[in-house]
Amino acid sequence: MTEPRQPGRQIVVLIGMLAVCFAAAGVGAGITSQSVNEWYQDLRKPEWTPPDRVFGPVWTVLYALMAVAAWMVWRRAGWPAARFPLTLFGIQLLLNVGWSLCFFGFKSPGLAAGEIAVLWLAIVATLAAFWHHSRLGALLMVPYLTWTSFAAVLNLAIWRLNA
Amino acid sequence: MTEPRQPGRQIVVLIGMLAVCFAAAGVGAGITSQSVNEWYQDLRKPEWTPPDRVFGPVWTVLYALMAVAAWMVWRRAGWPAARFPLTLFGIQLLLNVGWSLCFFGFKSPGLAAGEIAVLWLAIVATLAAFWHHSRLGALLMVPYLTWTSFAAVLNLAIWRLNA
Repeated sequence: MTEPRQPGRQIVVLIGMLAVCFAAAGVGAGITSQSVNEWYQDLRKPEWTPPDRVFGPVWTVLYALMAVAAWMVWRRAGWPAARFPLTLFGIQLLLNVGWSLCFFGFKSPGLAAGEIAVLWLAIVATLAAFWHHSRLGALLMVPYLTWTSFAAVLNLAIWRLNA
Repeated sequence: MTEPRQPGRQIVVLIGMLAVCFAAAGVGAGITSQSVNEWYQDLRKPEWTPPDRVFGPVWTVLYALMAVAAWMVWRRAGWPAARFPLTLFGIQLLLNVGWSLCFFGFKSPGLAAGEIAVLWLAIVATLAAFWHHSRLGALLMVPYLTWTSFAAVLNLAIWRLNA
């Protein structure tokens, strides 16, 4: 592995990636915290629902991982070639915030179940586009895809239990 | 840059680094949040003190950056060679939590000013040890060192204003 040539620029881009992902996390958390203690607590949930305190730490690590994944792809491909995978990445990040809006903002598990299916496909598309440039970058998205798959099943279960 | 050979292991180590750093962040935040609204608000502070809402996002990005820095060093050096720099890294992380304990836990800006001087030296030592294995890893610690330098000056100013 050769040492990258412009470390200063690499650090700025990583900070940018982290800032964008944590900003999305912050918007999602802002939507969630307003209503989670009122409406979510009273929903019927499956027995295997994780305790509330699990979600924050898991998502913090997942947002950091996806930022590093996007950074890895940029490092290997550069801006022009990375434009397509990073556009997909941006779309999946918006869909990620959109899920919080559907589930907690609109208090609609049904709408959120449809939204998370689109999010899941967008993550798979991003992962595939990342793979073309960096296998490590693609694999860094796998924990996020795994957790989103679990979240989708949980969302579906909550929807059916409260229909 | 060659593609790393064991991507699965790399992802596990990055998740571990992020979990350790965010756990330290969580302990520090736990110490801070208990007392920040009572005691800290009433302290005399210099005019250039950043607003409270700045610290959380800045520290979140800095903890992620230091986790990636430690990961970079491990990627290039492997465990046996990375033991010394990562031990220094662990010491500076403990000192980082220790600062929150001194300042917010013990409500002692004077003790915290002494502690942050030791933390600053530990970060410089970690950065120097990282440099030996990965220049990028070392430079990823620079934003953290810069912010800690600023925090040290702020701490000193608060100490003197409230002495």
